[in-house]
Amino acid sequence: MAVKILTIKEDILEANDAKSKANAEFLEKKGIMMVNIMSSPGAGKTTVILKTIEDMKDKIRMGVIEGDVASSVDADKINEQSVPVVQINTAGGCHLDANQIKHGLDNLPLDDIDLLLVENVGNLICTAEFTLGEQKRVMILSLPEGHDKPYKYPLMFTEVEVVLVSKMDLAPLLEFDLDEFSSAVKGLNEKAEIIPISAKTGEGMNAWYSWLEKQLRSRQNS
Amino acid sequence: MAVKILTIKEDILEANDAKSKANAEFLEKKGIMMVNIMSSPGAGKTTVILKTIEDMKDKIRMGVIEGDVASSVDADKINEQSVPVVQINTAGGCHLDANQIKHGLDNLPLDDIDLLLVENVGNLICTAEFTLGEQKRVMILSLPEGHDKPYKYPLMFTEVEVVLVSKMDLAPLLEFDLDEFSSAVKGLNEKAEIIPISAKTGEGMNAWYSWLEKQLRSRQNS
Repeated sequence: MAVKILTIKEDILEANDAKSKANAEFLEKKGIMMVNIMSSPGAGKTTVILKTIEDMKDKIRMGVIEGDVASSVDADKINEQSVPVVQINTAGGCHLDANQIKHGLDNLPLDDIDLLLVENVGNLICTAEFTLGEQKRVMILSLPEGHDKPYKYPLMFTEVEVVLVSKMDLAPLLEFDLDEFSSAVKGLNEKAEIIPISAKTGEGMNAWYSWLEKQLRSRQNS
Repeated sequence: MAVKILTIKEDILEANDAKSKANAEFLEKKGIMMVNIMSSPGAGKTTVILKTIEDMKDKIRMGVIEGDVASSVDADKINEQSVPVVQINTAGGCHLDANQIKHGLDNLPLDDIDLLLVENVGNLICTAEFTLGEQKRVMILSLPEGHDKPYKYPLMFTEVEVVLVSKMDLAPLLEFDLDEFSSAVKGLNEKAEIIPISAKTGEGMNAWYSWLEKQLRSRQNS
């Protein structure tokens, strides 16, 4: 039974990879940078996206794809900011896939977008396995989740280029060891950038925006 | 493609349900109550289990099955409390299943256990779909995750008998609306008990222990 499931999973992943590549090529032609943002439920994906829109929408033309098992509460919040947004409901699925992203792309005004932020389903496991055609992968780990998470969810930490450590304003109340966390992340993924942030106090948000702008510039120059 | 995946998933769920029933019957004969504890990563499953062991191990004979994608950091902590524990690594799988639990049961001193706490993989989605043969299902929602989670992960909130709202000590710093949260949970699952707790301050822990003891008593009397 176990082997059978594994084979099926490989087939699904292979089909997804092909569609992911097609998305990547399509976005490349359109000159759009897509960033896949992943985290546990409630780590602050929507808050970081909303704050990024608020602070950067005069500088960067953004769009958003919202992934959720159910509801459109997040997309509704983005929509209030007058940024183009599409909600994808996975109907029980624990991650977005490349095919769903294709449908999302078909429903966005792509000529008005340079940076497309994708909020994946809240999940540290399945989301890391399915590429979407994104150029960059970012994860958010919130302080209350604890500094031991790289040991417990290694694939996610291996697959991303940036780890935003969110809710830093709660640091005085928690026993989160940022040094131990950073060592654990670097042990899995030497090149990962770790940016501690708080959308509430604004701490670290400029470092995150600088990273985004640097990626956009290096694409335009290439 | 979508339909094919769905069929496969139904087969897997059906096979799991059969094994889950066998586990339930086996535990019934042994007089053991198994409780499946689910939550997002870092919501406090291990902390609640450790605190429950610390406060109740003189009154209730407990055992633990620890589920993780990787590592044994949680089982190591339980082991220090001299309570029988088995670690199950799912090797990438986003939930425990009934077959894995069967292996866990085979490796525990069942004659010395009345209450078996199962710490599921940190995940609000897949874990809710796979029954393990448990008599009771409990979820933990930590305050920093936000009060909108029932809208976004409805199946989990529908499937449990108790929702422990953890990290209540952080309440003064967060905008968590407990009334709105409770209404949302009750809208999905009228009978769910909601118990706000803090393992740090001890708030609500007695209500949780009373619930556990009540379930154990009602089983012994039936």
